[in-house]
Amino acid sequence: MNAPHQPLADPIHIAKQLADQFALTASERDKAGGNPKAERDLIRQSGLLGLSIPAQYGGQGADWKTIFQTIRTIAQADSSVAHVYGFHHLLIATVQLFSQPEQYGRWFEQTAKENLFWGNTLNPLDRRTAVQRISENEFIFQGDKSFCSGSIDSDILLCSGYNEAGKLLIGVIPTARDGVSFLGDWNNMGQRQTDSGTSHFEQVKIAKDELLLHPGPLSTPYSSLRPLIAQLIFVHLFLGVAEGAFDVAKETVQSQKAWPKSLAENAVNDPFTQKHFAEFYVQLEGVRLLANKAVEILQQAWEIGGHLTAEQRGEVSIAIAAAKIAATNTSLFVTQNIFQVMGARATAAKLNLDRFWRNVRTQTLHDPIDYKYQEVGEWVLTGKVPDPSFYS
Amino acid sequence: MNAPHQPLADPIHIAKQLADQFALTASERDKAGGNPKAERDLIRQSGLLGLSIPAQYGGQGADWKTIFQTIRTIAQADSSVAHVYGFHHLLIATVQLFSQPEQYGRWFEQTAKENLFWGNTLNPLDRRTAVQRISENEFIFQGDKSFCSGSIDSDILLCSGYNEAGKLLIGVIPTARDGVSFLGDWNNMGQRQTDSGTSHFEQVKIAKDELLLHPGPLSTPYSSLRPLIAQLIFVHLFLGVAEGAFDVAKETVQSQKAWPKSLAENAVNDPFTQKHFAEFYVQLEGVRLLANKAVEILQQAWEIGGHLTAEQRGEVSIAIAAAKIAATNTSLFVTQNIFQVMGARATAAKLNLDRFWRNVRTQTLHDPIDYKYQEVGEWVLTGKVPDPSFYS
Amino acid sequence: MNAPHQPLADPIHIAKQLADQFALTASERDKAGGNPKAERDLIRQSGLLGLSIPAQYGGQGADWKTIFQTIRTIAQADSSVAHVYGFHHLLIATVQLFSQPEQYGRWFEQTAKENLFWGNTLNPLDRRTAVQRISENEFIFQGDKSFCSGSIDSDILLCSGYNEAGKLLIGVIPTARDGVSFLGDWNNMGQRQTDSGTSHFEQVKIAKDELLLHPGPLSTPYSSLRPLIAQLIFVHLFLGVAEGAFDVAKETVQSQKAWPKSLAENAVNDPFTQKHFAEFYVQLEGVRLLANKAVEILQQAWEIGGHLTAEQRGEVSIAIAAAKIAATNTSLFVTQNIFQVMGARATAAKLNLDRFWRNVRTQTLHDPIDYKYQEVGEWVLTGKVPDPSFYS
Amino acid sequence: MNAPHQPLADPIHIAKQLADQFALTASERDKAGGNPKAERDLIRQSGLLGLSIPAQYGGQGADWKTIFQTIRTIAQADSSVAHVYGFHHLLIATVQLFSQPEQYGRWFEQTAKENLFWGNTLNPLDRRTAVQRISENEFIFQGDKSFCSGSIDSDILLCSGYNEAGKLLIGVIPTARDGVSFLGDWNNMGQRQTDSGTSHFEQVKIAKDELLLHPGPLSTPYSSLRPLIAQLIFVHLFLGVAEGAFDVAKETVQSQKAWPKSLAENAVNDPFTQKHFAEFYVQLEGVRLLANKAVEILQQAWEIGGHLTAEQRGEVSIAIAAAKIAATNTSLFVTQNIFQVMGARATAAKLNLDRFWRNVRTQTLHDPIDYKYQEVGEWVLTGKVPDPSFYS
Repeated sequence: MNAPHQPLADPIHIAKQLADQFALTASERDKAGGNPKAERDLIRQSGLLGLSIPAQYGGQGADWKTIFQTIRTIAQADSSVAHVYGFHHLLIATVQLFSQPEQYGRWFEQTAKENLFWGNTLNPLDRRTAVQRISENEFIFQGDKSFCSGSIDSDILLCSGYNEAGKLLIGVIPTARDGVSFLGDWNNMGQRQTDSGTSHFEQVKIAKDELLLHPGPLSTPYSSLRPLIAQLIFVHLFLGVAEGAFDVAKETVQSQKAWPKSLAENAVNDPFTQKHFAEFYVQLEGVRLLANKAVEILQQAWEIGGHLTAEQRGEVSIAIAAAKIAATNTSLFVTQNIFQVMGARATAAKLNLDRFWRNVRTQTLHDPIDYKYQEVGEWVLTGKVPDPSFYS
Repeated sequence: MNAPHQPLADPIHIAKQLADQFALTASERDKAGGNPKAERDLIRQSGLLGLSIPAQYGGQGADWKTIFQTIRTIAQADSSVAHVYGFHHLLIATVQLFSQPEQYGRWFEQTAKENLFWGNTLNPLDRRTAVQRISENEFIFQGDKSFCSGSIDSDILLCSGYNEAGKLLIGVIPTARDGVSFLGDWNNMGQRQTDSGTSHFEQVKIAKDELLLHPGPLSTPYSSLRPLIAQLIFVHLFLGVAEGAFDVAKETVQSQKAWPKSLAENAVNDPFTQKHFAEFYVQLEGVRLLANKAVEILQQAWEIGGHLTAEQRGEVSIAIAAAKIAATNTSLFVTQNIFQVMGARATAAKLNLDRFWRNVRTQTLHDPIDYKYQEVGEWVLTGKVPDPSFYS
Repeated sequence: MNAPHQPLADPIHIAKQLADQFALTASERDKAGGNPKAERDLIRQSGLLGLSIPAQYGGQGADWKTIFQTIRTIAQADSSVAHVYGFHHLLIATVQLFSQPEQYGRWFEQTAKENLFWGNTLNPLDRRTAVQRISENEFIFQGDKSFCSGSIDSDILLCSGYNEAGKLLIGVIPTARDGVSFLGDWNNMGQRQTDSGTSHFEQVKIAKDELLLHPGPLSTPYSSLRPLIAQLIFVHLFLGVAEGAFDVAKETVQSQKAWPKSLAENAVNDPFTQKHFAEFYVQLEGVRLLANKAVEILQQAWEIGGHLTAEQRGEVSIAIAAAKIAATNTSLFVTQNIFQVMGARATAAKLNLDRFWRNVRTQTLHDPIDYKYQEVGEWVLTGKVPDPSFYS
Repeated sequence: MNAPHQPLADPIHIAKQLADQFALTASERDKAGGNPKAERDLIRQSGLLGLSIPAQYGGQGADWKTIFQTIRTIAQADSSVAHVYGFHHLLIATVQLFSQPEQYGRWFEQTAKENLFWGNTLNPLDRRTAVQRISENEFIFQGDKSFCSGSIDSDILLCSGYNEAGKLLIGVIPTARDGVSFLGDWNNMGQRQTDSGTSHFEQVKIAKDELLLHPGPLSTPYSSLRPLIAQLIFVHLFLGVAEGAFDVAKETVQSQKAWPKSLAENAVNDPFTQKHFAEFYVQLEGVRLLANKAVEILQQAWEIGGHLTAEQRGEVSIAIAAAKIAATNTSLFVTQNIFQVMGARATAAKLNLDRFWRNVRTQTLHDPIDYKYQEVGEWVLTGKVPDPSFYS
């Protein structure tokens, strides 16, 4: 295990090693669903959970490029684990954006020191969790939240609810807090090991200093970077899955004969097969570059900090929206069409190669891509950047 | 149960009733895989197995339009059952094309009278089953065959092997014949209840008058209609699945609110949603018409019979290839994109809506669609019709 | 010249002969633009102008299938001439739908007898022509109309204007009527010989019995078939142009060598070239069938006549919208991509092969295809048929 | 006029000023075709012709990024002028790659000093020009060459022919050399002011020291960068044209009302219009990044120089091929579909907006894009980089 206070020699390499290990069981675990406890522990041990924690708290203080690259690398093998791993870093960023160092410092120190895994129960569209203030410093969370990726087996939990005035309140608590439970009801056609099921809060007590009130959610252009980071995590998931599918298809084809009617003997020389792979490659290459550019622009905005203007934040939003549109289209295209080049035998259940498509088909539905197009188009035509929201 | 000698009042209606019944369990059976025994028995009882049997043998003597329509109707609910049901009729056609009435008459009479279900073990690309002649009238089949759709729970079996001279021999035997066994090893990502696994022939004795020798397989333009009928069954499977997916998506959307950023309140009035459905509809409508035209041309060729010219057979081949290209593209497009209009909740495993995509993605790989394009393009440019083969 | 009272032996054959003749000069006339007087006279002489006139008035009383087939045949060679020829039949239909036999009978008799060519100045979106009633039986038309296809060199003119109450009034007059003039200002990138420029009405007197008042424009489901016939003419223009382009590409490729890196020697055997042509063919075949189906449904509605329900009219509208969507996409696809198979030398100006694309690119913009999708999608999801308008 | 020995303050700005000026007449000059003498002289005066000339010869010694950016900027307004301007720099690079400083130094000095414009008559596929050696130091070029872009009004000419042994010889001569003439026969549907017509060599004397013999054409991986630079010029032409079309469409739509059936009042708020522009934008953004990456890789290879390995050259080739595939598809997509958002009035001939499509449709046919796919696919599957040729 890497000591968290030491810089990780090569995070990408570590991620690749994890990915290689995850790849051995990814297909079986996809079928089984449920919580990838062993894999989560390997991530804990790898030191990668400290990547996004600033150095002064004992973390790696890595830049976004490095963080996203580790997410994508893991997604090439296992997009469920990559998702909850990415969301860990999203949550670390969330408290930086929604609260102050004096509040999050201790969480970060503990996270870096103990390799804590953060989990998510923030879902602004699900208003079933009510927050009641019972004293100056104490609040009660009561109710359910759906789509809580990475909640099970987490150490620290970001939770959210609406108070009587309809205001969204977000807190950070130990997952072990009394009254917190998870229904374990995530059973979907893809992203099957993300534990994106329902959380239940039964009279959960949360102290005032556990709430992210200053500046609070989406209160400034800078704090509104949060949903954009989430979207950019999705981009890297889609890209990673598509790259994983591409690699499998390539290896499969390399040992095949061409179809009897082909002018070529081997599949690698079949003109149609070659053209399909070129289409995959050119699209993937475009997505890689769009994703890289979005990361760069995010990094710049991140470094500007609290002075970030709405317009600057808008540019990040558009760059990420463009990357997301391309990544969505390409990942669906590649994961669907790899079968065309591999042929009928690639459909054997033991290979479980449909999981690539199932994973991106599921995750690309987080919010409708049509409205990402809409935002980009409106900006092109009117110059108006998207209004910050938990989806834009 | 319908008496087989009586014409079925309305085969399409019967097929629809079966489809409605199959729909109740299609999702669960897809997950379970294995043999759909109960559904196969319902088909036996429906009388539909006699549709393709000429009236003089006690069958319905239905035209191809009716037969394909029943296949497509069942495929809207369950493309696995539709597949083996369609292949039953393919096998009935096969013996008509590869042998003589004096040989197949008794099989047909028995089939019509007892509602026998035919199964397939004809796979010309798999050369592992050897045929040895042990006497004037007796042959031994020994070895394996893969991709034997509908073999398990069949009553009559079409089997095939190669003799020492490399000649393909096809026989028709009771499935219960000594030495015939099925490995039950079909476990693929789609078409999971087609039992398309491996058959094993252990010293199976087949009499000379059980072999289809006159005129034999693909020996004339007319007998070469056989693979085209198989291809047209696929077209109707693809179309049926896409129609089933379209219907589910439509019903789902009809009760949804539009995305918050939409200019419309309800999903049915959202411009993007409307355009997606229009794209689905226009494509489906095109495929329906291409399929219908192919059926008409096949019917004409079928009625011409033994005098069918190579050129006439070629026209059937091209019409079916065109329908197959469109049906392949459209069924993949629709089954992938229904999710875009339904949203994230449509990915719940209990709905199992990915089965539409998994089914067409699997079945469209029977033989590479690139080479259907190739055949059509060559014909357009040179006038050369595809050489008859078990795939063209 | 064919005697108008005699049935034309074979209208399609006559159309083909005209098309062959038009093809000789279509490229040059496209460059020149302006009025195709000679070609219009050949159409007059051919007898085809009487196709849509009922037999009791001396016309051919042809069904819509025949009429559309002649339009499409001419469009294969010259879509400008096909446009004004199609619009002639549209105008014949217009008066049948908007007025009564006692009114239009004499126009039809004269048209059939003298092979008169009808021209259009009906453009409901352009409100610049004002109608003033100056006496019980007399009206004055004053002002301009744009997009008046086929107006120049017409013999009879459909004209339109709005009265003070904002009501659209449509009249039929001899083109030679005092005060009627044409600016000859049509100069667009495609459909260059349709004379779709501006008409000017300078105090043009129109008698009450020249106005189409009973039932008047779009006043009933039946009379609202008019814009659908216009849309279906466009479908046949798009299809015809795409077929013409396809034929040229095919002939060009048939004598070409394949690119040096091809596995084939001749272009007709190059896999990529074959696939491109298969894509063209399959799409065209789909459009042909969608267009045929739309024609059949229109014919049925036409024969129902005044009792046509809004729902029945809606079905015609949807069938034509579906055909128009497919024809738009396919004609743009084919006319753009023929160059890909023909190569650089196909861009020589003397061949003028870009005219196919310029013609469909221009004509497909008559009204936005996005809103055809919208109409079809709304109907799929809600069952609501499009409200009749001059575009739906 | 900029003094050539002084560094240009801001070449991109100069290119933009030229582009703005060219834009005023681009449409009219497109219609007229022929030689853009005035614009070529403005380029001469701008100092941009010295961009690619190393500083020691009095040029600007700009990097490839700057050079390509000026080409793309000019192409946004006028892709014909951008083409011949880009080819000037290609020819400067050609002599650097195919010959030695002691040979090309004097040409460069003269070019930089006098702002000479280089022209092309190198067309390896056209073997009609024969080279005969008539003495130790003298050769005669005799015959024709087609597709000689930028030859007319050039000051220095790259010419080529085959000797009796079938070896390609390339020379550099003053365009005014006796016996050189141009037929002025370029009249194609696009790129109409590139003068890409036929050159004629009538007993043209060329001295040995005017031939590029060391190392000669495509003789090393490094010298084989030449065709790749040509391909990357095309990428920037396609991108520039698409950007120019995008800008026109945007401006047009910004003042339009939405279609009456739209849920929005103004076109910029119409959902379909917004989605179209987002599609344009995302594709263009992808192409921009792919082009930039290709330029970077080319620059690296250029700087490596003579030690460039075949593998390194192959990487440049693949990066440029990927950019070219995307740029081809995107430029055709954008220039075709801008009409969909602008509507029917955008087809007025006086706007001449079809020139964008005609220009890219013509130039994208330089060599078949299918074989760029083939090269990329082969490399993906086998690792084999494309064999250097004048097209790869």
